[in-house]
Amino acid sequence: MLKNILLLSLQMSLVGITLGGNVLIWPMEGSHWLNIKIIIDELIKKQHNVTVLASSAALYIKPTHTPSLTFEVYKVAFGPEKTAEVIRNFVLTWLENRPSPSTIWRFYHEIGKVLEDFHTICRGNCDGVLKNQKLMEKLKKSKFEVMVSDPVFPCGDIIALKLGIPFMYTLRFSPASTVEKHCGKTPYPPSYVPAILSELTDQMPFADRIRNFISYHLQDYIFDSLWKSWDSYYSEALGKPTTLCETMGKAEIWLMRTYWDFEFPRPYLPNFEFVGGLHCKPAKPLPKEMEEFVQSSGEHGFVVFTLGSMVKNLTEEKASLIASALAQIPQKVLWRYTGNIPTTLGANTRLYEWMPQNDLLGHPKTKAFITHGGTNGIYEAIYHGVPMVGVPMFADQYDNIVHMKAKGAAVEVNINTMTSADLLNALRTVINDPSYKENAMRLSRIQHDQPIKPLDRAVFWIEFVMRHKGAKHLRPAAHNLTWFQYYSLDVIGFLLTCVAAAVFLVTKCCLFSCRKVGKTGKKKKRE
Amino acid sequence: MLKNILLLSLQMSLVGITLGGNVLIWPMEGSHWLNIKIIIDELIKKQHNVTVLASSAALYIKPTHTPSLTFEVYKVAFGPEKTAEVIRNFVLTWLENRPSPSTIWRFYHEIGKVLEDFHTICRGNCDGVLKNQKLMEKLKKSKFEVMVSDPVFPCGDIIALKLGIPFMYTLRFSPASTVEKHCGKTPYPPSYVPAILSELTDQMPFADRIRNFISYHLQDYIFDSLWKSWDSYYSEALGKPTTLCETMGKAEIWLMRTYWDFEFPRPYLPNFEFVGGLHCKPAKPLPKEMEEFVQSSGEHGFVVFTLGSMVKNLTEEKASLIASALAQIPQKVLWRYTGNIPTTLGANTRLYEWMPQNDLLGHPKTKAFITHGGTNGIYEAIYHGVPMVGVPMFADQYDNIVHMKAKGAAVEVNINTMTSADLLNALRTVINDPSYKENAMRLSRIQHDQPIKPLDRAVFWIEFVMRHKGAKHLRPAAHNLTWFQYYSLDVIGFLLTCVAAAVFLVTKCCLFSCRKVGKTGKKKKRE
Repeated sequence: MLKNILLLSLQMSLVGITLGGNVLIWPMEGSHWLNIKIIIDELIKKQHNVTVLASSAALYIKPTHTPSLTFEVYKVAFGPEKTAEVIRNFVLTWLENRPSPSTIWRFYHEIGKVLEDFHTICRGNCDGVLKNQKLMEKLKKSKFEVMVSDPVFPCGDIIALKLGIPFMYTLRFSPASTVEKHCGKTPYPPSYVPAILSELTDQMPFADRIRNFISYHLQDYIFDSLWKSWDSYYSEALGKPTTLCETMGKAEIWLMRTYWDFEFPRPYLPNFEFVGGLHCKPAKPLPKEMEEFVQSSGEHGFVVFTLGSMVKNLTEEKASLIASALAQIPQKVLWRYTGNIPTTLGANTRLYEWMPQNDLLGHPKTKAFITHGGTNGIYEAIYHGVPMVGVPMFADQYDNIVHMKAKGAAVEVNINTMTSADLLNALRTVINDPSYKENAMRLSRIQHDQPIKPLDRAVFWIEFVMRHKGAKHLRPAAHNLTWFQYYSLDVIGFLLTCVAAAVFLVTKCCLFSCRKVGKTGKKKKRE
Repeated sequence: MLKNILLLSLQMSLVGITLGGNVLIWPMEGSHWLNIKIIIDELIKKQHNVTVLASSAALYIKPTHTPSLTFEVYKVAFGPEKTAEVIRNFVLTWLENRPSPSTIWRFYHEIGKVLEDFHTICRGNCDGVLKNQKLMEKLKKSKFEVMVSDPVFPCGDIIALKLGIPFMYTLRFSPASTVEKHCGKTPYPPSYVPAILSELTDQMPFADRIRNFISYHLQDYIFDSLWKSWDSYYSEALGKPTTLCETMGKAEIWLMRTYWDFEFPRPYLPNFEFVGGLHCKPAKPLPKEMEEFVQSSGEHGFVVFTLGSMVKNLTEEKASLIASALAQIPQKVLWRYTGNIPTTLGANTRLYEWMPQNDLLGHPKTKAFITHGGTNGIYEAIYHGVPMVGVPMFADQYDNIVHMKAKGAAVEVNINTMTSADLLNALRTVINDPSYKENAMRLSRIQHDQPIKPLDRAVFWIEFVMRHKGAKHLRPAAHNLTWFQYYSLDVIGFLLTCVAAAVFLVTKCCLFSCRKVGKTGKKKKRE
């Protein structure tokens, strides 16, 4: 009997089946949560039990218990309003200090101040779990098989190590890409891989390559300064001298939330899996009122406009300027907006508190998407082949729009300096110049044409880690090296020393021989 | 009607279907051919028409025409015996000059001589197609959609470019990995990625890292010297100044014939796909006589022994030594061997001219596999979880066995120096020490547990290139950079110059100020 069970288990392992396991989730706020929620739903569909560690100060993560989904809400010393405040400050600081080569120091100075609050929240959340012995005991008893963690909120890795279970990340990018580069050991050649937040592409003339090279080192330095305090937190929590980076390097798999339709091709390691657009799906029918409105657009079609979940409203002046531009296009416009109705709002524009964004983008009459450039929204536009007008505001949104511009599927307008005419021109360009639609469709074809869907790949690797208690066969030996060993600096130093010693010895021998010859010559002359 | 066809074609493209297309194959001899034949069979199953360009001097590539498979046999000035001679010399030279740190120069000197003959054959084959205008015209008219080329025989890429079709490679490794590194732009950090043919693993102490570092540069230099003449051939054939490397860099996809159960994890680019073991499949029942023989082994099981398709026979002395070792184990032995029957042959050993290797390795009674360490055979052993005794003889076989040793699934014996006792001990170790079987089974589980089978992945990417006329979205921008731009040497040079200039200016200013202060001081003193 036991033999049969073992045989069955071996067979299932061979054909890649995992029976209902226990998955622990360490989530992040906002769009990150929306993305990981898709993975959670799929895991539940595959009969796993999922437990989400949610802070009592969570803003977007709303506990909804089902038989397969448990929310462990841990208490922290602050409320959701503190989380909201930090996010608001973060967005505003970025909006007011958009980084450029001339303002980079001011940007990092200002963002550094906001980051202190961010780290306080993160540490509060982390303490909320680690110092809650009852919760930790409960988690230990729950026999989790894997932790899926969003490393933008540090701590998931510590909890996993404390529970003795393998962990993996879901990540769009880390500040300075330091985590991917130094903790994950991925090579980032600065000559053609643009630094994150640099707004550069993979086609860099000399001046841009200089900027990129400096960006890499500057960002690494800034990351080191701003995240340094975590090293002692990690050491204390794990009870041994360690660093944030060393701990993060233990991740079994990195699920990156991009793919090569969006990303510029660059080197990566076998334990990185690019699952961008895993949340995308075919459009469902629109609500009746909405369908009637978009149908009324006739052959002109309609435009979808949203600035994402983190930006609630614009100033009245900005909203009015935007509304005035929208009023001038023949398309209908659906705008997700909850502020006061702008006086310039055209008859062609309707405001919504919430919109079924994916269903709208997948509607055959969609002509363009005005977006803040969040990765989730961009991927929905790519999936459905909709050209974009980008109005980036913070974090990776500038970069994201630069990527879409480089691939010919978007035009950017600057939220701070734009006029009505700018927005209008941008809209007319992406709607009337067929190349934008063609490029968006090309990206869509790439996104659809993968050997296996991104969501299936993500779930496969989570289940793989559960089946095999890790994915050690994908882990590069680079993790065992110090940074100077990794860059072969000790070897180069040794070889240079050998060459120098050889040159020194040969020179000495030559000089010695010359002198000898000289002396003999003089002697002979004297004789 | 046309609209419907276009719509259908778009839908098929979106869901990743390619209707019967035309695929052109540029194959290589020996085990390479056996591997690509599996891809060809799968392409035919998927209703594609496949045309193989086969030299009249081909040795293993036997034309077998079917409605979907065409062999275009082109005439060359030499016969198959010349190909056989070059292969024989190649194996013998390697066997007699196994490279080690102390013999490396002699090895490259000797192998360099054989390579000259090899290049002559390659050029003969290449001329056989390129200078055959009638054949080139016919190929042009055949409207191929992709060329799958084995780059160990250069030329497939030239033919593809001449025909104006995209091309891709199937490759285990290139000498010095120069092609993957410099032409394919894959980073190979010498600190933890062992140089090909170095017999090192990814765990290298300081001395090994020095050896590896030197190996990288030495091998690059040797590759450059030995393959340099191809640059002018490529330039002439393509009618413009180019190099072998520049042309090879245009490959859309690189199908690498390894995977992470065999390979040490290392960085790679999105247009590299690791499809090692694509030829592996479940075992079929054995021929009756063979089944009876292996069943007669009882609980001891049996051992499979083959030295591959390129080595026909051993010296009588070596064969006798081996037979004597085999006679001393309680297992039955099936030995693929066509020489004179060794006098020491035991009753437990049967000789075969040919064996169903995969079916034997997949038999539940198999205990061990004595192998020369070819990648195909190793992958069959991995697939079925059979521990190995490696008797490597040439090319990557030494490395392959080192990989299997490092992963705990093999023991190596040296074909040149081994005694009967060595082979016997090795066999007893892998059969009686359970860790070898466990490790082989671990590799087997990794090989089986992939999101999509290697063969399906290989065919997917061939079809992808057909559907999209390439895979440009996976191509890194590194291809547009010179080597010094790639390594940011121009940027580093510029920045160092800036720093030097700044230091110079500051020093000058300081000196100038000091002098001024000095003069004023003296003046004041005088006053």
